[in-house]
Amino acid sequence: MIYFDNSATTAVNPMVLRTYTDVATKIMGNPSSLHGLGTTATRLLEASRRQIAELLGVDSQEIFFTSGGTEGDNWILKGVAFEKRPYGNHIIVSNVEHPAVKNTAEWLKTQGFEVDFAPVDGDGFVIVSELEKLIRDETILISIMAVNNEVGTIQPIGEISDLLADKPTISFHVDAVQAIGKIPLEAWLTERVDFAVLSAHKFHGPRGVGIVVAKKGKRLTPLLHGGGQEHNWRSTTENLAGIAATSKALRLALDDDDFKRQKVRAMKQVILEELEKHRKVHVFSKVENFAPNILTFGIRGVRGEVVVHAFEQHEIYISTTSACSSKKNAAAGTLVAMNVPSKLATSAVRISLDSTNNMAEVEQFLTVFRQIYQELEKVSG
Amino acid sequence: MIYFDNSATTAVNPMVLRTYTDVATKIMGNPSSLHGLGTTATRLLEASRRQIAELLGVDSQEIFFTSGGTEGDNWILKGVAFEKRPYGNHIIVSNVEHPAVKNTAEWLKTQGFEVDFAPVDGDGFVIVSELEKLIRDETILISIMAVNNEVGTIQPIGEISDLLADKPTISFHVDAVQAIGKIPLEAWLTERVDFAVLSAHKFHGPRGVGIVVAKKGKRLTPLLHGGGQEHNWRSTTENLAGIAATSKALRLALDDDDFKRQKVRAMKQVILEELEKHRKVHVFSKVENFAPNILTFGIRGVRGEVVVHAFEQHEIYISTTSACSSKKNAAAGTLVAMNVPSKLATSAVRISLDSTNNMAEVEQFLTVFRQIYQELEKVSG
Ligand SMILES: Cc1ncc(COP(=O)(O)O)c(C=O)c1O
Ligand SMILES: Cc1ncc(COP(=O)(O)O)c(C=O)c1O
Repeated sequence: MIYFDNSATTAVNPMVLRTYTDVATKIMGNPSSLHGLGTTATRLLEASRRQIAELLGVDSQEIFFTSGGTEGDNWILKGVAFEKRPYGNHIIVSNVEHPAVKNTAEWLKTQGFEVDFAPVDGDGFVIVSELEKLIRDETILISIMAVNNEVGTIQPIGEISDLLADKPTISFHVDAVQAIGKIPLEAWLTERVDFAVLSAHKFHGPRGVGIVVAKKGKRLTPLLHGGGQEHNWRSTTENLAGIAATSKALRLALDDDDFKRQKVRAMKQVILEELEKHRKVHVFSKVENFAPNILTFGIRGVRGEVVVHAFEQHEIYISTTSACSSKKNAAAGTLVAMNVPSKLATSAVRISLDSTNNMAEVEQFLTVFRQIYQELEKVSG
Repeated sequence: MIYFDNSATTAVNPMVLRTYTDVATKIMGNPSSLHGLGTTATRLLEASRRQIAELLGVDSQEIFFTSGGTEGDNWILKGVAFEKRPYGNHIIVSNVEHPAVKNTAEWLKTQGFEVDFAPVDGDGFVIVSELEKLIRDETILISIMAVNNEVGTIQPIGEISDLLADKPTISFHVDAVQAIGKIPLEAWLTERVDFAVLSAHKFHGPRGVGIVVAKKGKRLTPLLHGGGQEHNWRSTTENLAGIAATSKALRLALDDDDFKRQKVRAMKQVILEELEKHRKVHVFSKVENFAPNILTFGIRGVRGEVVVHAFEQHEIYISTTSACSSKKNAAAGTLVAMNVPSKLATSAVRISLDSTNNMAEVEQFLTVFRQIYQELEKVSG
């Protein structure tokens, strides 16, 4: 089996799973409990928080745990919106955000907020000058993802940070779910970024755990009210085993990350060169300013599903762009936002590589690709 | 070690943990993915949902997964409130709800909803006639817990169901986090109940997984918007290992549950009889209409923390009522609602038993209790 669908989810690292089971077996207390079992649990919880904070270069008081990327995005969008409603009701999100951001913004519209969707250019990059034009006095929040999940564009977070430098009343949120480990930290966690979101299952951590970075002094209305955990910001009994495992997974993901990026980039490069030799292939994910792990392309005239299933016959797993749009049989939202003609957009498939993949898999993938291409070229008209 | 704090959290069952690790190791796909790995994941997800539905006697379309009891309560309260706002803005919750309900209701007040807190009697039971008086034409939701986490009262869900029988426009939510396995299903999941919430870590399942029962035809605004999982009701990549483990844990919890309840009730009875022999002991948790596993009492004139720590010296773990109020050094909300004088209320400690406990532990507990009582009686003035 060759798994080239790592942007959908990754296999949990066996060492991470061991941390999970160790903690679940040995640390049974509820961190909220007054007795020693509670104290032991709290100590591990805070040690995990500290490790994650150090890895991200922030303060441990700036780290909060959630159930995943979606909760993080919902919390930050709704949390800022409800918190800052007295000061304004205008929100800007890019037109290529993950549905966790886009659909949350759509819902906020039903609650009296105004939302603008910042456009992208033909390659999928947010046009900063257009974003600037959308900013108003009432703008309270701008949400731009660091790496797009469908084509791998690295959004100009640095440039947007500069733009917002003299606009301190606007909260700046970055969905970094697809960025962590894939591009350097500095490329998305700038001084100006107020909030950021990660999801553990994208970096070989457990499912159902997310991280929110909320910079000191920034405020959020809770999404989960209750017993007062996480300094009253996110109530619920802490998923200690999941959190400890996530901290381990993040450490492993950021260990030697430069080297891993180079390895992944080299694999992408080899695939890209081969794909481009084929007349009917259209490549959406270039190299410069694109994540090293994501390669989205289409065979003109052939629907993405057909290509996915053809590869699957050879036990090679890729996807029709994002996992969540795949079952809906719709073109990727990002490609639509890029104004890609619908026929070409529905041909798109996404390869998402990982440092656990290797060049032998790439070679095998390409052998199968050539075979599939030959077969499909005939029927593609 | 003797762990008598099972209402705070339970130890994960080793068989449940094995299910978790098996699934995490073997089933790596994202259920949303189009390819075979996605299909395998979806199949297991739906099998887990079906098993849970069968165990609860509902349809599998009525089962949704969350990150715990708190998210479930937040989702149902906010989800009903936002969904039904055009029809009314009045909500009633009991005065002894868990903070996941109470604090969510408080927040809804800031969003233009009106909330009444239904009173309880001196023993902690919701007074149904008083609840009835609070109902108005604008009432859209009533939320009453099945078993109170601080004293173990079993609330009159059947009676309230009768009261609401001819009021179909009022949604009826039951927080059953402390009820599952502890009292029979029929006692809280009546025909009239529209929504109910469970949390896996209270029945030897993993932390960070909850179950929401939402009866067919009932509507909820999502709390987590995004990729459209759970039929668009609760987006995020599904925590498959956690869900499969939860389904296993629920099966084990409901296996022979009548017998387990008898076992636990017998242990409570023995402790109760001994406690009542002590002049300075005040017992809050009687037997009739109280959960068989919860026994809250106080030694008059001695703060709860002191008692908790005294037991801890003997490696016996109990708590000052609920885990989440314990660190705040405040009297249990339930006791305050019961009009227990503050001095008596702050003496309260909670024993919460489990079928994994045994009579030998009870004997040891009582030996230690007698010793502690003797010491503390002198200093209690
Ligand atoms: C960019 C982006 N944001 C958010 C999410 C949602 O993450 P999760 O599945 O952990 O809720 C994803 C994952 O699909 C993503 O790719
Ligand atoms: C009655 C009740 N409701 C809700 C909760 C919250 O559950 P969780 O910790 O899974 O969020 C608890 C647990 O503390 C509880 O006892």
